[in-house]
Order: sequence, then C-alpha cells, then structure tokens
Amino acid sequence: MKIKRSERMIDMTYYLINHPHEMISLAFFAEKYHSAKSSMSEDLGIIKKRFDEEGIGDLQTIPGAAGGVKFVPQLKDGDALRKIKRIAEMLSESNRLLPGGYVYLSDLLGHPYVLKAIGQIIASRYADKEIDAVMTIATKGVPIAQSVAYYLNVPFVIVRRDSKITEGPTVSVNYVSGSSARIEKMVLSKRSLRRGSRVLVVDDFMKGGGTLNGMKTLIEEFEAELVGVTVFAEGKFNGERQITDYDSLLYVSDVDLKTKTITVVPGNLFNES
Amino acid sequence: MKIKRSERMIDMTYYLINHPHEMISLAFFAEKYHSAKSSMSEDLGIIKKRFDEEGIGDLQTIPGAAGGVKFVPQLKDGDALRKIKRIAEMLSESNRLLPGGYVYLSDLLGHPYVLKAIGQIIASRYADKEIDAVMTIATKGVPIAQSVAYYLNVPFVIVRRDSKITEGPTVSVNYVSGSSARIEKMVLSKRSLRRGSRVLVVDDFMKGGGTLNGMKTLIEEFEAELVGVTVFAEGKFNGERQITDYDSLLYVSDVDLKTKTITVVPGNLFNES
Repeated sequence: MKIKRSERMIDMTYYLINHPHEMISLAFFAEKYHSAKSSMSEDLGIIKKRFDEEGIGDLQTIPGAAGGVKFVPQLKDGDALRKIKRIAEMLSESNRLLPGGYVYLSDLLGHPYVLKAIGQIIASRYADKEIDAVMTIATKGVPIAQSVAYYLNVPFVIVRRDSKITEGPTVSVNYVSGSSARIEKMVLSKRSLRRGSRVLVVDDFMKGGGTLNGMKTLIEEFEAELVGVTVFAEGKFNGERQITDYDSLLYVSDVDLKTKTITVVPGNLFNES
Repeated sequence: MKIKRSERMIDMTYYLINHPHEMISLAFFAEKYHSAKSSMSEDLGIIKKRFDEEGIGDLQTIPGAAGGVKFVPQLKDGDALRKIKRIAEMLSESNRLLPGGYVYLSDLLGHPYVLKAIGQIIASRYADKEIDAVMTIATKGVPIAQSVAYYLNVPFVIVRRDSKITEGPTVSVNYVSGSSARIEKMVLSKRSLRRGSRVLVVDDFMKGGGTLNGMKTLIEEFEAELVGVTVFAEGKFNGERQITDYDSLLYVSDVDLKTKTITVVPGNLFNES
C-alpha cells in the first residue's frame, strides 16, 4: 500500500532515530513504501534539512548504488551548553552537600532529562569516531554508559570491583586509587570485550583519575584500543592526576562546607579550542 | 516561519517520541508552528494513525480547551512476542553455560537491541498505570530499570548491597536470600524516593524471589507503594517463592549441564489471560 509523503515522514523519522549510526539503504525504504529510490531520496532530503535546522543531528547521505543514509545524533554546541548549564545548576544545590565535602548526585544519574542530555552530548563528541563499545565501572557509571551507548548504538560493558560467579572467566587488574593511594582491584568478564575493540570509557566522577587509569590498563589487557575518556563531573584535585587526556562535562570547582556552597561550571569539553 | 505539513510531521514525531507519557498541549504546537489549533489537531490525527498502524504506540488525545496529546509507547502483542523469542534464542546459546548451572547474560544487558526491547515491553505492560519511579538493585538490574524508565519517562532508583559515603543517609532492610537462605542487607539512599511514590520494581533474574521481596520491604519502609514486579528472566525453583505476584519476560525452564543445553521460553507475561 502506498502512503502519502506526510505519513512516510512520520515512519522514516521514527525509524531513523531508532537506528542511529546505522547505514540504511535507499532500497530498504523504497521497498517498504513501494516507491522509487529517487522519491525516497527526496523524502530523506527533507528530513535531513529538518534534522539540521532543529539541531536533532546529521543525516549523512552516502551516494551510489550501494548508497543510503546514516543518522548521526549531534547536538548543536549551543544546545549542549544550555543543557549542561541547567544540569550544573541542579548539581550546585546546597542540600547535595554530604559530610567530607562529597556531593550527592545519584538522583541526577537516574533522571531522564539528565541522562538524555549526557548521552547526547558525549555521543556528539565522538560522532565521527569509530567506536565498538562503551566501558564503565559499576555502579554509578552504568547509567552514563547506557545512555551514551544508546545514542552511538553500540553495546556497553561494566567493569566490577568484585568478580561474580555469573560473570564467567574474568580478567582482573590492580590500580592505585588516587584519593586514598590504596591498591584496589577491578575485573571484567572475559567474554564481554573482543580483542581489537575500539573503546570509549565513561564514568560519573573523577578526582585523581586512578579508576580511569585502571580501566585503561584493563583495555590493554584485552588488547583493545582506548578511543577516549569522558566523565560526567571532575572535582578539584591537588596533585598530579593519573590521567591527563580526558573530557569532563562538569567541573566542581569548589565545595565550601562552611558556607554550604557547591560551585559547578561546564567542564573542559566546553573549553574553546 | 511557517513550514509545510510534511516538515511538521518530522518535528512533531521527534518531539513526541522524546517526551513519552507527557501531556503536550495543542497550544504548544500551534505556537511553535504559527498555525491554528485545528490544523495541529489534523496533523496529530495523521501521526496517531501512523503510530497505531506501525505499532509505535498510542497517541492519546485529551479534548477540550486544556486538551492536548500524550504519546504512550506501546508495542503490539505480536511484536513483543517476536522480540522476546529472538532474545530467548540468544539466551539459550550453549556457550552461556557456566559452572553450577549459571547462565551468562551480562552481554545481553548491555546490548542496544535487547535493552530497547525489554524497556518497550515492560513499559507497555504498565502503560496505563501511574508510575513515579522504577526501582532495581545493583548491578545487573540497572540497565533494565534505565530502559523501562526511559520509555515511561520517570526516574529510576538503585538499591545497593552496601552503603557508600556518596549516598548520604540511607535506609536499610534485611532480607532472606532465597538461594542460600542467608540473611543479607540492602540499602537505599533516603533522598532517592519520596513518600507515597508509586514504584515499579524490575530485576534481571529471579529464583527464590528473596531479593525482590527485600525491595518490597524497602518500599514499605519508604511509605511508598508497589505497583508491580517484572523480571527479565526467571529460573526454575524448587520450593516456595517469596514472591508470587510478578511478571517475567523469559523463563529458563531447564539447564542441562550434561548435554549443555539451556531451554528458554517466553515468561508468564506472555501467558494468555
């Protein structure tokens, strides 16, 4: 059954945003809508324009007989910054302050608006990189990894601090926890990451970078490749960080227990380059 | 600037699927597109029809001056069963078998296809229930909770087995772990759940139901209300389960270490009622 262009726009939009970073052939749509490839091409041109104008993302067109389209979610810089400023505001609410100067952020990492924004921003940052898997460490990194993986349309893997029987054979590495200078252990199920995978590492919070450095070592053990490291928030750290090449969405620049203020600004991802 | 109907269809589709379970007024769209409410109404009628025909979900229309639309993701029963059968096949691969008859499933819970399907199926099951939060226990339940919460557009909360300094004040309960008949502890950050919240509990795997029963107790401690319990997979259990009112997406009906076979069938969610 043939349907109208306006109806096809609904279907195609839904299909594309549910299959990000996936090459879809013109033939697929042509067959689905019993229409000529040329008319599918026109439809996709309209969608491309709207996605661009609305800041939804980039609809990349691959010409030729084997051609098709690929939807790459891509926030505009201004939209990303606007969202991160809103999240910075949430994070700087004074009632988040915990004894010892810790900041409560678990609720934010379960909040649909925040998770969508984090996922979109990090996925935009790596939109033109080839990534096979997102890696994080349990527990608070998981929602971040999942949201990024959703927009990149790749799987994510969870590193744990203990090995469980349900994980099967594991590989473990030791690392130096930056904040306490203790030796700790992290494990990853052997079958969760293929050799040669290109891996993006994400986590919720970074101080000394010890945990992130541990994941870097783990990636080497798997003979995989580290593509990048992005954290939701970084805190102030007096001393040398174990990792220097990373992006942060937020920077908790000051925590003052006396005045009960938390100062949060956009992280280095938003630095002008 | 006025844009054509076919272009509006793209925008509106994108907006609606990014705001599930949210009431959006006709006035919002009318203002955005500088158009009459009646013409927005027509647009939404077309979208409603396509969403229905394509099995994307239900676009509920609320009439009257304060009226609007609400997009409720809702898989058709046939689509849900088809997806779950494909996942059952993945889960019954013999190389998932671990010593002791455990089944490896961590990769599935990091797989975009599987997570979308789980989220859509469970969210469809509770489409007409009022839900304020999804609850799960770390670590493997987290991806399930997040995906369900995504489609219901509500936050999720993570119960932990240990209390961490970054969680602030917590409430803890003891529970009897069904498989080992040991007393264990679970904790939830006090500020993560408001009194009176209507809670949907999800988890990855159920045997005796002890963990789920623990979360039930925790919900009572928070003076919140349990709306339902859904697990990704349930295993065979000899004895009385601690919980009887639950849904499962999959039922691991047999694990045979000798022949190395795992038998997985659709769970009780798919029983004809």
